[in-house]
Amino acid sequence: MTAYPSDALSVQLPTLKSGPVSVAGWIYRVRHIGGLTFVVIRDGQGLMQVRHDDADAPLPGLEPEMAVRVSGVLVADPRAPGGVEIREPAFRVLAESESPLPFHLGAPALEAGLDLRLNYRTLSLRHPAARPVFHLEAALAQGFRNCLNAQHFTEVWTPKLLGTASESGANVFSVQYFDREAYLAQSPQFYKQMLVGAFGRVFEIGPVFRAEPHDTARHLSQYTSMDMEMGFIEDHHTVMAVLRDVVAFMLETARPESAVDWPKVPDTIPAVHFADALDLVSEGLGEDVRHEPDLAPAHEQWLGEWAKSRYGSDFLFVEGYPMQKRPFYTTPDPARPLYSNSFDLLFRGQEIVTGGQRLHRYQDYLNALDNRGLSRAGLEGYLDAFRYGMPPHGGFAIGLERLASRLMGLSNIRDAALFPRDLKRLEP
Amino acid sequence: MTAYPSDALSVQLPTLKSGPVSVAGWIYRVRHIGGLTFVVIRDGQGLMQVRHDDADAPLPGLEPEMAVRVSGVLVADPRAPGGVEIREPAFRVLAESESPLPFHLGAPALEAGLDLRLNYRTLSLRHPAARPVFHLEAALAQGFRNCLNAQHFTEVWTPKLLGTASESGANVFSVQYFDREAYLAQSPQFYKQMLVGAFGRVFEIGPVFRAEPHDTARHLSQYTSMDMEMGFIEDHHTVMAVLRDVVAFMLETARPESAVDWPKVPDTIPAVHFADALDLVSEGLGEDVRHEPDLAPAHEQWLGEWAKSRYGSDFLFVEGYPMQKRPFYTTPDPARPLYSNSFDLLFRGQEIVTGGQRLHRYQDYLNALDNRGLSRAGLEGYLDAFRYGMPPHGGFAIGLERLASRLMGLSNIRDAALFPRDLKRLEP
Repeated sequence: MTAYPSDALSVQLPTLKSGPVSVAGWIYRVRHIGGLTFVVIRDGQGLMQVRHDDADAPLPGLEPEMAVRVSGVLVADPRAPGGVEIREPAFRVLAESESPLPFHLGAPALEAGLDLRLNYRTLSLRHPAARPVFHLEAALAQGFRNCLNAQHFTEVWTPKLLGTASESGANVFSVQYFDREAYLAQSPQFYKQMLVGAFGRVFEIGPVFRAEPHDTARHLSQYTSMDMEMGFIEDHHTVMAVLRDVVAFMLETARPESAVDWPKVPDTIPAVHFADALDLVSEGLGEDVRHEPDLAPAHEQWLGEWAKSRYGSDFLFVEGYPMQKRPFYTTPDPARPLYSNSFDLLFRGQEIVTGGQRLHRYQDYLNALDNRGLSRAGLEGYLDAFRYGMPPHGGFAIGLERLASRLMGLSNIRDAALFPRDLKRLEP
Repeated sequence: MTAYPSDALSVQLPTLKSGPVSVAGWIYRVRHIGGLTFVVIRDGQGLMQVRHDDADAPLPGLEPEMAVRVSGVLVADPRAPGGVEIREPAFRVLAESESPLPFHLGAPALEAGLDLRLNYRTLSLRHPAARPVFHLEAALAQGFRNCLNAQHFTEVWTPKLLGTASESGANVFSVQYFDREAYLAQSPQFYKQMLVGAFGRVFEIGPVFRAEPHDTARHLSQYTSMDMEMGFIEDHHTVMAVLRDVVAFMLETARPESAVDWPKVPDTIPAVHFADALDLVSEGLGEDVRHEPDLAPAHEQWLGEWAKSRYGSDFLFVEGYPMQKRPFYTTPDPARPLYSNSFDLLFRGQEIVTGGQRLHRYQDYLNALDNRGLSRAGLEGYLDAFRYGMPPHGGFAIGLERLASRLMGLSNIRDAALFPRDLKRLEP
């Protein structure tokens, strides 16, 4: 059997000793300087510099984006990317590339509009500036999992095809499921709660679907949700304490080597009650917003700046959102039942996590549905879970693309999705 | 802020020192023996024994499946599960359970038919025999990821909503996507190939959807697929070498402590060409199957036994399946073009992995589609990926539920899905 490919990856090169080496990748840039040709090769992670002496045998014709394998001699050279350079190269062309390309990939920034970038997504993703957000997402997800696995959470995979458009009737995609209608899951909310009764602590990372009729820079029809749910909590504060550790672990796992302003999670994230937040915002903005049932983006922005100046924190919990703005399964605050045992986590003034404590008694569910005029039809399997000793429980959800795009400072969430889906886009 | 719940988990108890302890879980069994009451508490992972002296204050009424918290004193006792027991208990009931239950959860085996088990899924999952397959799945997935991450694969999340029913027109679910029709992805095949051109090596673990019209013990409408794809390979043998290591790593990661007959992956998995496999089967079964285009289950079974007796191996590669039975993107064997650079991995005589080398030249794709009479319509975004230097590449896919159910010896794959979806079942 053939062994693994013996090509070194760009990330491995700086750790290798000088000597014979083979690498593979795509032609990124070719430059001729005083009798030498410098060829920069790009692979999945980074760049590698190859130096050819034009006095030697001529190079094959090298076109941008050709796939090549290069054997040569690795030599330390501080002027090259990663401090190493490949000399005495022999090139083998593995696959030709058409030309011209729809845009120039060798430029420091990709000069192509959003639609063109997305139409040629497999090509625009080759630009070195396009991929860090996806490496970040992979690292964030791995941090999320490793932190929860260490606390004995069980990773689960729940159904994306549902018999009822149950969690919310709006913005649901319908599916022709054999001879009946099904609906795509907007979240794993019901299933992660049901599984608390068997597994105690569960998490899932997977796609969720929103038939989002708005064409904005913040919404996708499919995104990746990182969900957790845990039983035997005191109240939502237990969930917030776990969330603090999860976010700290994720950011530590995903910190890029070159990061300069990477956010730091305080040992205790400052928390403010929703009612107090409205007081603060009213005072700060000089405008009475105390009657508002929710925080507007401008209010969150103000609170983010307040948390930074007051506590030196990029993160702020807002807890106790009004019951009327939270879903029917939310637990009311026993002391102030118009407010809820729920929270949002703001990062630099934008919401990145939503969570809370859920109702856990069957009768409380029946009452909550009745009070909101919601039907029990189709919810039987969900409601059954609360008839047999469901402990107090809660959880949270983090949108992976949203978190990553905010950490990277991207202005459009589509740049944080490999193949974004929206109102207009279903291809490629 | 409230700290984490201070309850010890059943898996942690045996590692704790004697002394005060708090645990939480569900009432599993209550037995009275000579003035003592033994209460077995079940949590998400295992069982814990509590001993109450009836001469002390009376216990509260304890019904099966109540959720409780118990504080007491942890004492080593070799007769108890895990070698520890909680004495001098104080019980706090967190949530009542209805009675009677639809089945008896305290019995060693759950005596309930498949439909009843699935109708009350959140309850049947509480039976200690029902959950190990799901802990196994979580561990297999983590092993898959950790092995590929160590080899610099990038984890990706690809679209489940597609503009065309492209990979295969059959068994696809259709979705009402705003004002047009979309289709649920049957696999991430096209997207993982497209991403090789940018990331070099990618993997994904996520749901795939098959409108499977057969009601069998082996099929689900949604299952979890573990997919990888890598570039710069020599041929399919490179992929097979990586697969060997991935499977070995997964099984090592997921090995249950109590496993006695846990499969061992040989350093080199024996491989047999499809044509030779048919020769062997014809001779072994005394029946000429040399003209068959595929292996029937009975043939795979025979080959599994042959690999075991000939090589002492639970695993066998069959490579070189006929082109006519493989998808259009498959690379033909350059030396014998009616056969393909593809493989299946058999485990104890059943297929658990399918993979191979893909075509990588644009013109080869156009020819392959034309030769099979397939249209290019809707495939433009996929085909574009092969115009700009796509290197030789290949990959494989493993069905998580199928692998787990075979490792556990389950007869119906539905017992390896938390909430299975099939021709008839869309709830709970």
